Amino acid sequence: MTPSPISGGLLASINDPAEVQALNAADLPFLAQEIRSRIIEAVSNNGGHLASPLGVVELTIALLRVFNPKSDRIIWDVGHQAYAYKLLTGRVENFHTLRQLGGVSGFPKMSESPYDHFGAGHASTSISAALGMALAREQNGLSNHVLAVVGDGAMTGGMVYEAMNHAGAQAKPLIVVFNDNQMSISKNVGALSYFLSRNLSSRWLRRVKREVSDFLQSVPGVGEDMLSLAKRSKKSFKTFFTPGILFEALRFEYLGPVNGHDFAELEQALNLAAAVVDKPVLVHVLTQKGKGYQPAESDPANYHGIGRFNPHTGDVEAPNAGDRAKSFTQIFSSSLCELAAADNRIVAISAAMPEGTGLGAFAEKFPTRFFDVGICEQHAVTLAAGMASQGLKPVVAVYSTFMQRAYDQVLHDVCLQNLPVVFALDRAGLVGEDGPTHHGVFDISYLRHIPNLSILAPRGRRTLKRALTMALKLGTPVAVRYPRGECPYIDKPDDPDLIKEGRGEILRQVKARGNAQGNAGLAVIAVGSLVHPVCLAVDELTSEGFFDSLAMNDGCAAISGQSGKSGLTVYDPIWLKPLPKEEILDLASSHAKLLVIEEHALAGGLGSAILELVSDAGLAGHCRVLRHGLPDAFVEHGKAGELRAALKLDVLGLKDVITRALGRA
Amino acid sequence: MTPSPISGGLLASINDPAEVQALNAADLPFLAQEIRSRIIEAVSNNGGHLASPLGVVELTIALLRVFNPKSDRIIWDVGHQAYAYKLLTGRVENFHTLRQLGGVSGFPKMSESPYDHFGAGHASTSISAALGMALAREQNGLSNHVLAVVGDGAMTGGMVYEAMNHAGAQAKPLIVVFNDNQMSISKNVGALSYFLSRNLSSRWLRRVKREVSDFLQSVPGVGEDMLSLAKRSKKSFKTFFTPGILFEALRFEYLGPVNGHDFAELEQALNLAAAVVDKPVLVHVLTQKGKGYQPAESDPANYHGIGRFNPHTGDVEAPNAGDRAKSFTQIFSSSLCELAAADNRIVAISAAMPEGTGLGAFAEKFPTRFFDVGICEQHAVTLAAGMASQGLKPVVAVYSTFMQRAYDQVLHDVCLQNLPVVFALDRAGLVGEDGPTHHGVFDISYLRHIPNLSILAPRGRRTLKRALTMALKLGTPVAVRYPRGECPYIDKPDDPDLIKEGRGEILRQVKARGNAQGNAGLAVIAVGSLVHPVCLAVDELTSEGFFDSLAMNDGCAAISGQSGKSGLTVYDPIWLKPLPKEEILDLASSHAKLLVIEEHALAGGLGSAILELVSDAGLAGHCRVLRHGLPDAFVEHGKAGELRAALKLDVLGLKDVITRALGRA
Repeated sequence: MTPSPISGGLLASINDPAEVQALNAADLPFLAQEIRSRIIEAVSNNGGHLASPLGVVELTIALLRVFNPKSDRIIWDVGHQAYAYKLLTGRVENFHTLRQLGGVSGFPKMSESPYDHFGAGHASTSISAALGMALAREQNGLSNHVLAVVGDGAMTGGMVYEAMNHAGAQAKPLIVVFNDNQMSISKNVGALSYFLSRNLSSRWLRRVKREVSDFLQSVPGVGEDMLSLAKRSKKSFKTFFTPGILFEALRFEYLGPVNGHDFAELEQALNLAAAVVDKPVLVHVLTQKGKGYQPAESDPANYHGIGRFNPHTGDVEAPNAGDRAKSFTQIFSSSLCELAAADNRIVAISAAMPEGTGLGAFAEKFPTRFFDVGICEQHAVTLAAGMASQGLKPVVAVYSTFMQRAYDQVLHDVCLQNLPVVFALDRAGLVGEDGPTHHGVFDISYLRHIPNLSILAPRGRRTLKRALTMALKLGTPVAVRYPRGECPYIDKPDDPDLIKEGRGEILRQVKARGNAQGNAGLAVIAVGSLVHPVCLAVDELTSEGFFDSLAMNDGCAAISGQSGKSGLTVYDPIWLKPLPKEEILDLASSHAKLLVIEEHALAGGLGSAILELVSDAGLAGHCRVLRHGLPDAFVEHGKAGELRAALKLDVLGLKDVITRALGRA
Repeated sequence: MTPSPISGGLLASINDPAEVQALNAADLPFLAQEIRSRIIEAVSNNGGHLASPLGVVELTIALLRVFNPKSDRIIWDVGHQAYAYKLLTGRVENFHTLRQLGGVSGFPKMSESPYDHFGAGHASTSISAALGMALAREQNGLSNHVLAVVGDGAMTGGMVYEAMNHAGAQAKPLIVVFNDNQMSISKNVGALSYFLSRNLSSRWLRRVKREVSDFLQSVPGVGEDMLSLAKRSKKSFKTFFTPGILFEALRFEYLGPVNGHDFAELEQALNLAAAVVDKPVLVHVLTQKGKGYQPAESDPANYHGIGRFNPHTGDVEAPNAGDRAKSFTQIFSSSLCELAAADNRIVAISAAMPEGTGLGAFAEKFPTRFFDVGICEQHAVTLAAGMASQGLKPVVAVYSTFMQRAYDQVLHDVCLQNLPVVFALDRAGLVGEDGPTHHGVFDISYLRHIPNLSILAPRGRRTLKRALTMALKLGTPVAVRYPRGECPYIDKPDDPDLIKEGRGEILRQVKARGNAQGNAGLAVIAVGSLVHPVCLAVDELTSEGFFDSLAMNDGCAAISGQSGKSGLTVYDPIWLKPLPKEEILDLASSHAKLLVIEEHALAGGLGSAILELVSDAGLAGHCRVLRHGLPDAFVEHGKAGELRAALKLDVLGLKDVITRALGRA
């Protein structure tokens, strides 16, 4: 399994994707092997998705032998499975930079290559985009092929169905390659997956059998003999009722199922699909997640997305001391389990990510109170609304970026109805290597204008647990947002009032020393993941002689204003909505400047909310509000630390931002 | 058709919904007739939905004869069809207040009645909520029934499919009453509607027939005779392949189709459904939109939602002079047609609302360039993204409130990909009687933080046309938002530069007179629908002697600051993103106060954006930014004029807001 060197391989000889068509069929297994080695090499070094890309290597080669990505359009749903496609379309030399800052993206990206025909990172969008391209082709008088490659995990998303419903009615050529590996990110869920699995529900079969029996009896001249014959033919029955019947009801031609690791079968099916000119076609391809790499084959869920690992053994790299520390996700997980043990009205909902969101432990402890709905955040949220209306306390744990898919449901089904649903928004902030499709940097802006909703942003272990406790107590909709990564111990011990409406915390109060800064009196406001680095930055500045320490607070302090005009205060509001109004206005009254720091879009974010508060109170003339956060642009992929450094959101950058703020008029 | 008086009728005798069960079956047609009269009476007076409520009268009565809304849960999808339900569940006396300020809501509303088990106004949410209630019932150890009543229009929304997929797998009792009237708001679209229509696609039938033939041949001992018999039995075939097969694939029990205007059939089917304990059931009910009122029966699309009309003739009330004026929607419609005539890359997409959004004319003129996708805004947006990626210029016309459903697609599929899709956001602002589910008062907040997106808010006929022209020229994502209602002539004639990035317009400059105000120098900033009333308010204040008029501008003026410290300026930025930065900072420099007025949530809205700009430029100390708009609460239903008056967004209220702003320190 040692990765082969670039030179001499088949991959290196492919300068143009069209050359894949010229390869000798006998060489294809070697090409597949080489691609797998390159994928394993890159992912073992850089982390990334593994099981999905390995499953579609033969499929990708077959696609490029039948279609030409210069004129045809190939759209990868979600996109994390497109590594082989990237290797075959001009990115072999840079593939070792996968997911690194400035390197090859882990997802299709239109600006990266003309062969990436559509960008993605969220699920279930590909058929809509492909249909748009197919309709544009008609408009443009062209005759190229358009394909969407969509996994069965993404098939739980309603958009897929919306698009197929429309495509079936449009009756234009369009090829949906249905990559069926019987896995979502975790194990697949939903009635469709039963239907599509090769073990059709025996109950359903019985019912259909009964109907066919009735039908047979109704055919004139055929009696009981026919019926008893039919009853004995269970096997024929199963092959007759292929999954095709479902897709054909949506007016798709159905081809398959096809062995997704057999080049000849794949090419034959794709050629057949290409020949259909009067309707959309669905090619049902059966693949194995992790194919060709034993550790991933036997544990595809854990090799779905993975950090650095040893390619020879499959062992994930031993975490360093920092990684061993508990993550926000883990603290959420254990806190929720603890709370749920004491209150059986608490139920938990995941959209295909029990592991990622830390709900796995909850699911084990409370199997009847856990619901994995598949990749469909919209349904997850409204399902929770229905539960809450009947007295349950549902917690919907979803990544900040994926909650975007359910914005309307949060507003219309939860907050307008004022139902006590708790949204646990994980991965709020920069996520790192997954890049712009996954950064959770818009949720404050898309949530804080929604009436009835409270928003909490705990910064550490105890605040997270207390925030969750409070959220489940409030009886109204609450979002609790927290970042990816380590959850520090920077909150004080068990203060039952730690999370109290209208109350944040002062964490540092220092006094200006000499002429180290200009116009003094600065309050720095930060929440969540940034509180710790802001405190560290202030501590370093203090030890460097910028300040005299007044209070290094692990916990609460009354807003005293003692730093006031000549010093610096670090404040964590904890509540993003409603903001602790009195405390923030006290800070604005007692300081010349407020500096709000956020790992979030500046437009409409926390700084904007504080600015609204200060300005509405008529204090904007007295106290200047400075805002530091993300500019109005999508943030690229790269290690979270690198991205933070570039955005001056790491300790070094924050020291600079704080000292500049001190110096500003 | 004269409405009967309340007293003496059957309705008046029903004090408790459970009493419907005690009624004599022979009385039910009279009850239905009375309900229809009451609906026609209320809608002809107040406007509202008509065709849908009339179609489900018998269904509603049957539901209340089989189920008890005190313990059972009945959820109406979209909700506009629930008028009969309201009449039978305690709202008969107030029903004449339908959709009026403080009156009965046009939609189910949890705070209005304990019998409104879930609120709605947007489509396709009911099955998710119902499943949530069904799962909560299990958790709570209860055994009540849970029902979702969903129309075929809402069946194009992916959420329905997400929910059914989950419900099928959960295998808990749950009843979906599928109200199939073969209409969305307009004519239904999509492959599913073909499938569900009683004329199954003959092509599909042929294919299935072929498969059954193959199957029959494979049954041992049966030969060509059997096959030829089967071929002759087309009729049996059709009845065998009921729509049920589709729902059964999702592990639902299927019952129907049932005549939705036959009490006995309905009750029988609902009783059967109530008896199923091990899986969800779908009851397929065929109804006629507008049933029992001839004008609505023959033109259900136009009687879907309607203004005041003459109940005897069905004639919609002659509009008064104001209504006769062209609406923003009409100006959008004619402008788009004009632009599309000159550029065949322009295509238009509607989500089931060609009439409401004014795309009907476009569809007639350019049938091959118009796409109605059904009620599925998510697909509509990503479809447009696919089209834009291939060189088309798609315009997606959707109401502001419904675009909430596609927030993630706007962000992830259009703006992250930086594709030139134009979003025509109609009904931006308060919509009036449809109430909180329909007010378009969040779009600035949910859009302005999205990188790459421009937002334009034209205030009148020419700016709308110019804004649309500019939007189609920019080559990047653009939202053009405009309100419901009359589109005034308050923009100057054909200035080709009317819409230019970085440029708004000064519309009034007046000089303070005497001591009429305190701290002078106020710039009032408003956009879209509020520009006209703000100008009227200033004009009235001027004629009342508050100001000396300096400039009454129908068009552009250089920012002169001549009103400055001692007067008042009215400014329309037109661009909400990017804001005309220089001009606004000039205003901030030359005025003591900026007053931003918006018919939109204050949190994260236009005032917030201007505050960010002024503060970031360091001018917040020099110029105070005052904001006037919607508080952090959902705005109820009522006439738009009444709501504006209550919120001080009408001319009278604005005069007060402006004079108070002048007086504020």
